[in-house]
Amino acid sequence: MERLAEAPIGVFDSGLGGLTVAREIMRNLPMEKIVYFGDTARVPYGNKSRDTVIRYSRQIMRFLKTQDIKAIVIACNTATAYALDVIQEEAGIPVLGVIEPGARMAVRSTKNHQVGVIATRATVSTHVYTDTIARMDPEINVISQACPLLVPLVEEGWVHDSVTQEVLLRYLDDLLAHDIDTLILGCTHYPLLRSTIHRLIGDRVTLVNPAYETALELEKLLKDTGLMNNTPRAKDEPTPYRFYVSDDAERFADFANSILPIDVKQARMVRIEEY
Amino acid sequence: MERLAEAPIGVFDSGLGGLTVAREIMRNLPMEKIVYFGDTARVPYGNKSRDTVIRYSRQIMRFLKTQDIKAIVIACNTATAYALDVIQEEAGIPVLGVIEPGARMAVRSTKNHQVGVIATRATVSTHVYTDTIARMDPEINVISQACPLLVPLVEEGWVHDSVTQEVLLRYLDDLLAHDIDTLILGCTHYPLLRSTIHRLIGDRVTLVNPAYETALELEKLLKDTGLMNNTPRAKDEPTPYRFYVSDDAERFADFANSILPIDVKQARMVRIEEY
Repeated sequence: MERLAEAPIGVFDSGLGGLTVAREIMRNLPMEKIVYFGDTARVPYGNKSRDTVIRYSRQIMRFLKTQDIKAIVIACNTATAYALDVIQEEAGIPVLGVIEPGARMAVRSTKNHQVGVIATRATVSTHVYTDTIARMDPEINVISQACPLLVPLVEEGWVHDSVTQEVLLRYLDDLLAHDIDTLILGCTHYPLLRSTIHRLIGDRVTLVNPAYETALELEKLLKDTGLMNNTPRAKDEPTPYRFYVSDDAERFADFANSILPIDVKQARMVRIEEY
Repeated sequence: MERLAEAPIGVFDSGLGGLTVAREIMRNLPMEKIVYFGDTARVPYGNKSRDTVIRYSRQIMRFLKTQDIKAIVIACNTATAYALDVIQEEAGIPVLGVIEPGARMAVRSTKNHQVGVIATRATVSTHVYTDTIARMDPEINVISQACPLLVPLVEEGWVHDSVTQEVLLRYLDDLLAHDIDTLILGCTHYPLLRSTIHRLIGDRVTLVNPAYETALELEKLLKDTGLMNNTPRAKDEPTPYRFYVSDDAERFADFANSILPIDVKQARMVRIEEY
């Protein structure tokens, strides 16, 4: 039987954006195995109610638990905002979301106590970044901006495009007027716009990538709980990364290969409603 | 017991875009009652597989049938493309989709046999407009363009916006280069962009609104089957329009009221997975 530390980490998202989190785990914790689940049949979660998102997250947790995982990373802002507490209570293994790691880094980074957050409409409406940062440092002023066009623009592949720049400028206008010195990329797709945003606003604003911060916190969590995998991979071992989706697995590979540092051959389809 | 002709028409869509079809039915068939179902928990259908869309459409058909409807309008291009045949076979009442009415009008309208279609990526990938028009007139050349950014732009409310114009110009560029004289607005959200598109391309291209054509075909279908409602509404009768959604009914009213000629007070939530 596999030692617990050698078990994979379960990572899930409403769709494919969470692959930016999986990517940071691959880069920063190369010994760790990953089971990724993308709820592509029910994406996006952003316009769904709290109850629905909790119900979906529970189903995914139950599926991931069948994969003998040692920990769960909720690589989705909406699912973290609505379901982190419930999943932490019910999973019976360590569970990490993407909100706190990003919020913590923003609190450490800001000098003038003006922090901007860009996210989906849903994430903004939960006030989760505002509340989380307020608990960490009530002196910090958080200005949030919903950016519903950015995910479609990224998925259209218009990452370095004049239209995307124009849309970003509008979305960022109010945040810059508030003189923010730190900006949280509060949606898992947004790290893909990082260089475009950097080019627009320059070095005066520190960009916080929650995907990267989450990978670092995961490393700490695994160390603290003795769950870090220190066993090098055997040469004949199959790929340490497995991908599951809830709908048409075919479309997965293209987007995955545009994000991940590995070659993804395929994803398997899971009837997630049955979990 | 209600006479069959006085029964409502069931209209469904993956979300709220189908309200543009409901709107045309309200305008053109003011005596008809409507039960609208928007699958807001599972929107969009565009990135889902054929099997999933058929499964969802069946559940909605079963729900609508509990509402004692006399006919069904599938006010969704993806659901029409994938599920019209199945629903027509199983519903036991007349069923109309949005593809054929729009295709038929385009065939009647084009002079130079160059017809453009703008739609979601999913609708384009089904080739449903191309195939349907080819069956009607094999001489016609259909040029399709997927426009995945238009729905988010409409939902952002940027209908008369320079960004939307720029995005439209790019999407329409190739179609205009093919010298199309007819353009099908092949997604239920796009009629809301009609005046913006008209301003961009002028009178040289006839815009076909499938929502309007579907309402006209519904009128013909109801007449042909003796199902037209000719009984004027009693003064004390409650509203002839009922709205159901599969998720958070709160967000429904805003968008509905921006589209419909009536004041929508509320929608009721249905657990559609249980049907």
